[in-house]
Amino acid sequence: MAAEALLDVVGIGNAIVDVIAKADEDFLTANGMVKSGMRLIDAAQSEELYGKMGPGLEMSGGSAGNTMAGIAGLGGKGAFIGKVAHDQLGKVYRHDIRAVGVQFDTPDLTDGTPTGTCLILVTPDAHRTMNTFLGACQLLTPDDIDPALIQSAQVTYLEGYLWDPPEAKAAFLKAAKLAHEAGRKVALSLSDAFCVHRHHDSFLELVRDHIDILFANESEITALYGGDFDSAAAAAQKDVETVVLTRSEQGAHVYTGGQAYHVSAEKVSAVVDTTGAGDLFAAGFLYGYTNGRSPADSARLGAICAGEIISHFGARAEADLAALVKSKGL
Amino acid sequence: MAAEALLDVVGIGNAIVDVIAKADEDFLTANGMVKSGMRLIDAAQSEELYGKMGPGLEMSGGSAGNTMAGIAGLGGKGAFIGKVAHDQLGKVYRHDIRAVGVQFDTPDLTDGTPTGTCLILVTPDAHRTMNTFLGACQLLTPDDIDPALIQSAQVTYLEGYLWDPPEAKAAFLKAAKLAHEAGRKVALSLSDAFCVHRHHDSFLELVRDHIDILFANESEITALYGGDFDSAAAAAQKDVETVVLTRSEQGAHVYTGGQAYHVSAEKVSAVVDTTGAGDLFAAGFLYGYTNGRSPADSARLGAICAGEIISHFGARAEADLAALVKSKGL
Repeated sequence: MAAEALLDVVGIGNAIVDVIAKADEDFLTANGMVKSGMRLIDAAQSEELYGKMGPGLEMSGGSAGNTMAGIAGLGGKGAFIGKVAHDQLGKVYRHDIRAVGVQFDTPDLTDGTPTGTCLILVTPDAHRTMNTFLGACQLLTPDDIDPALIQSAQVTYLEGYLWDPPEAKAAFLKAAKLAHEAGRKVALSLSDAFCVHRHHDSFLELVRDHIDILFANESEITALYGGDFDSAAAAAQKDVETVVLTRSEQGAHVYTGGQAYHVSAEKVSAVVDTTGAGDLFAAGFLYGYTNGRSPADSARLGAICAGEIISHFGARAEADLAALVKSKGL
Repeated sequence: MAAEALLDVVGIGNAIVDVIAKADEDFLTANGMVKSGMRLIDAAQSEELYGKMGPGLEMSGGSAGNTMAGIAGLGGKGAFIGKVAHDQLGKVYRHDIRAVGVQFDTPDLTDGTPTGTCLILVTPDAHRTMNTFLGACQLLTPDDIDPALIQSAQVTYLEGYLWDPPEAKAAFLKAAKLAHEAGRKVALSLSDAFCVHRHHDSFLELVRDHIDILFANESEITALYGGDFDSAAAAAQKDVETVVLTRSEQGAHVYTGGQAYHVSAEKVSAVVDTTGAGDLFAAGFLYGYTNGRSPADSARLGAICAGEIISHFGARAEADLAALVKSKGL
């Protein structure tokens, strides 16, 4: 029997500062990017690409960090574990996540590796293409996982991107084990189809052995299970207690307790930048899940938060999310 | 007789990275700010205020830097002189201004002083209140003024904010002298009424002795000349060849060659953040001025650029300014 939880969610992820710029499709092609994907680049590649891209807008990002900021914006209680460096961008990251009310106490990295950045190119169709230099993020280790924090949260939420750096992988497995021993739930976002392809077998093992709540979009779930959306969705339900699948403008599906729920996408006047749509859907859903809402209401909370985030640049909310969902009857 | 100019405008100003956050009026009051103003704060004050304010959006700013970015966005040729440190935010500043096509070769400061930042609080009424930690900006010196650059530009444009640090003041006087010796024009933005009050007599002397084109809003021009708008405007015309006065939603007035011109403010669907409105008005006007447009058309260019900047957060354009003014028949 689990003790009473002090936190709704603890998120573990890459602590990344986003650098958002506009670009056209030719720029993506000329610089070897696959539109709408995420690729990992090293310091030299990041430097080179930055030199070529347009003026940027810097703001805290990172998938799980965005989700935690969203949960806090809805009034939820959360904490974040991730690695920033002792530099200006690390300070920005720490400030921003704390300023929205998320507890963040992972110590700075001080070996000279800079804070991670993600160069995000937004094309005129509002799609985002991401180029991530992990920097300090890669050096998140099992020692950074505070057992008391994991034990105190109803859900431990991990971003699939963390499955790239080996030490971070170990950190995640430690967290998942701690969470389950404390009777808590473990959630995972598959993050990116390329990421799923890179680590297909170990990802599938992770999902089967450790995950209670799985978030994915269509390309990610089919990358993991093969086949089309319906067959992949059916396969996922056999492995995971709660499966949350987002399908952009077609809304989202939740499968849990033998039931299926569908929620429509939120109508927005103009889609400006899709960065963070999945992260904020997860925020709304997890806030609902940990605050006693039904699966259908939780999905609707997810859709509203995702709708807010795609209507402006950046992956952190501009609106007061708590007021927004209240205005929509939730 | 001046040689043919290679550049339209060279701007000299504080190289500042803006940190933009939302705040309510109570927050301003509780932290000793006067709404819509700019105050200078030191490193410790900046640290303290940053710790209290909400999550930020970082983007390059600085008054003259914003103006130069706007001129480049319109297709003009420009350069910028200002001081950043050899740190992450300095790199952001240099990247952003070069990425829009502005030449920027002032060497980094390497004494450990960080790049300057401006903590900007935007209240629900879209007004911005600025708290500037000058950092490296203060250490712009006359040695940073490249004579060839000044001589090659039709207009040398300075922000009044630079009238605070003593070395920067000397740098500006050097630039003004070089410009006039080369038969060029010198422009000044009064920047801020508090700034005008701080340096009233020396500002008036500067304007009378060195300025050909003066930009000010209503509170700035009345701070400099006293009286009401009309009497201050009349006084300014006696001192300066071309006077450009902006009046927010009441549009702007240009006085030059014995003529007066008025342009209406651009209609925008929603005013989000007024940061940079004056800077971008100056950009449009100076682009027109240096590209053979009439004073009336130049003022209209200013109004369109100002209208773009107040319709979103931040003081650098999101729209393609050249395309925007073309779509409006300019």
